[in-house]
Amino acid sequence: MSVGVANTDFEVVGGVRLAAMACGIKKNGKHDLVLIEFAEGSVAAGVFTKSLFAAAPVQVGRRHITAPSMRYFLINSGNANAGVGDAGIEDSMACCRALSAQAHVAVDAVIPFSTGVIGERLPVAKITDALPTLMAALDPTHWLVAARGIMTTDTRPKIASRQVEIGGSTVTITGIAKGAGMIQPNMATMLCYMATDARCSREQLQEMLAGAVGHSFNRITVDSDTSTNDSCMLVATGASGVDVSSGKARDAFESMLGSLALELAQGIIRDGEGATKFVAVVVKNGPTSQVCCDIAYSIANSPLMKTALFASDANWGRIVMAIGKAPVSIDVNRLDVYLGDVQLMAAGQKRPDYTEAAGAAVMAREEITITVDLNAGDVTETVWTSDLSHEYVTINAEYRT
Amino acid sequence: MSVGVANTDFEVVGGVRLAAMACGIKKNGKHDLVLIEFAEGSVAAGVFTKSLFAAAPVQVGRRHITAPSMRYFLINSGNANAGVGDAGIEDSMACCRALSAQAHVAVDAVIPFSTGVIGERLPVAKITDALPTLMAALDPTHWLVAARGIMTTDTRPKIASRQVEIGGSTVTITGIAKGAGMIQPNMATMLCYMATDARCSREQLQEMLAGAVGHSFNRITVDSDTSTNDSCMLVATGASGVDVSSGKARDAFESMLGSLALELAQGIIRDGEGATKFVAVVVKNGPTSQVCCDIAYSIANSPLMKTALFASDANWGRIVMAIGKAPVSIDVNRLDVYLGDVQLMAAGQKRPDYTEAAGAAVMAREEITITVDLNAGDVTETVWTSDLSHEYVTINAEYRT
Repeated sequence: MSVGVANTDFEVVGGVRLAAMACGIKKNGKHDLVLIEFAEGSVAAGVFTKSLFAAAPVQVGRRHITAPSMRYFLINSGNANAGVGDAGIEDSMACCRALSAQAHVAVDAVIPFSTGVIGERLPVAKITDALPTLMAALDPTHWLVAARGIMTTDTRPKIASRQVEIGGSTVTITGIAKGAGMIQPNMATMLCYMATDARCSREQLQEMLAGAVGHSFNRITVDSDTSTNDSCMLVATGASGVDVSSGKARDAFESMLGSLALELAQGIIRDGEGATKFVAVVVKNGPTSQVCCDIAYSIANSPLMKTALFASDANWGRIVMAIGKAPVSIDVNRLDVYLGDVQLMAAGQKRPDYTEAAGAAVMAREEITITVDLNAGDVTETVWTSDLSHEYVTINAEYRT
Repeated sequence: MSVGVANTDFEVVGGVRLAAMACGIKKNGKHDLVLIEFAEGSVAAGVFTKSLFAAAPVQVGRRHITAPSMRYFLINSGNANAGVGDAGIEDSMACCRALSAQAHVAVDAVIPFSTGVIGERLPVAKITDALPTLMAALDPTHWLVAARGIMTTDTRPKIASRQVEIGGSTVTITGIAKGAGMIQPNMATMLCYMATDARCSREQLQEMLAGAVGHSFNRITVDSDTSTNDSCMLVATGASGVDVSSGKARDAFESMLGSLALELAQGIIRDGEGATKFVAVVVKNGPTSQVCCDIAYSIANSPLMKTALFASDANWGRIVMAIGKAPVSIDVNRLDVYLGDVQLMAAGQKRPDYTEAAGAAVMAREEITITVDLNAGDVTETVWTSDLSHEYVTINAEYRT
């Protein structure tokens, strides 16, 4: 299941070529190997999982991202190359070396990524044998096939573009993402690749990416589980010639980047494993961002709240329960709570004029907003999530069978 | 579903009488009102939910528990009397007043408890009208009917007893508990009532209860959700004449109490909503209790780990993922991980001799132990949990329909 209609339109980005193919990692014969090439002079920014068991490619990627010559992202799906110790690092490096020889670039010009089953050795030969075919297939128009090539339990690709005029020139940014389960990113999402033809330094790009991720990929949860392989990348090729380092150009670019990142992050929730609902949890007028996020995640990750959403049951007592268990100190007698535009609770008590029918009408929708007004400050945070359905259990009980 | 065979044997406790009946709160006509009477001179200890939205009876109970004249627990199921503001306090007090008039005791001699749906007014008249019938039914042997009377989504009663000889006299302790979902108690469980004929002060009883709860009810989780009504009570009637205030008598009593609390807490997990597995997560040789608990709960509450347990899938990558997302700082290169007695991981890496068949044989069992050895200290903590099944989703999607 999934919620809403998926976008498949996109714009090509100057200085970027892509290719995807099946190299035999996935047993079902679907595409499982993706290559993204960036023009010389491109700079890359990235944020990675904070998992204690960060996968081997994440460890390699953290080193290679600062290389002056960054040129390729080599991405496989079907195998996470995680939890296999030092052998995993060696396997990732073997893939980097093979591509560096083929493409005549430095080894650290290649950043490897993996996603899929944890704890199995990466089939290196399948990947390296496929490289000549993959190189030959590189094309600026292959964004959508690349988006499909990085999918695992996803039911549909996540792709989006934005364009803005800056100083009379068009600046483009296009991104793809994957992820449907094991989603509560901690500084990054499952996998996301964004590229732009704008020009700026690596440090500036990293700043802008961190800002965008903070309010998009770091505000979504399907099941509270954080992947060993989460990575979110942004590359600037500079092909448009437009400098976005500062001033209004930077403002315009950051606004566009934030909007793109949010659409891709929300795309992951809309395709959340077994999702039948797309839910925004807004906690507003709080004292700090942390308090707002703690309450929002307590609601968004509560299995009882998520099953009520699945059942379209206006069981608002579960909202009360979920707020109550949040690890914060607040005055509950100031709380106003809304389901859509229906106010359930005023000053910490059920509103006398609230009717089950009004709540049920909101819960029956496919897209639902739950708003908690703390009346205790001026900070607002929003977290997006999906419901907990039978299909979530089925997908994850049968993942390896 | 539930795991294992439920106990229904128990011992009567001197100074305690019980009664249960249907007063019409539950629509299905099952018992929903329980009264427990304690002899004059009894002392009560209790630990209550830390939810910000603690239910009205919890707020009343916190006041009444220290009354010198504590005599009655009045418990209804089917309605939680939570999230209804000051009206809930008034409703709880009205029930206390009605019983105090009937039984000729002080109002604060009655402690009220409620469990069930959140956010609906308590039907006070149904309760007060039933009190004469309930009073007339009080009997020392009615522990099992009382255990059934406090059930909501439970599929079976939880009841257990222990006896020990102290100074030539027999000391008895018997307890009942309810709970199957919304279970991650925070200093207490859903509802648990234990009574003993031992004698000690209220302060000593409170100390001993807090100690027992710390390693039983505060170490279980079904779904990470904490109730607004959690309460765990221990009453000492003194009817045996045996003083357990200090020395070997206290040691013997505390040991018996700890054993009883653990059996009742584990009974909640065995009857966890939709449970098909009973799982112990042991984190040992850690630096602190907090680090061990953080890792144990990260595993025990992971939806992906719980669906793998449901599927009997030895997907040990999900253990790695769950350890990795724990909010702790540890050296993962020192970790040994075991599924039952099968070692999966040594020094942070998959063991070369680990076979899927060996892991699958453990996962096929109904009772499973997952052990994580941090090799970084001498503290051990154990958390008990159940799996995440289709039936959990069904139960909670249909709870109010």
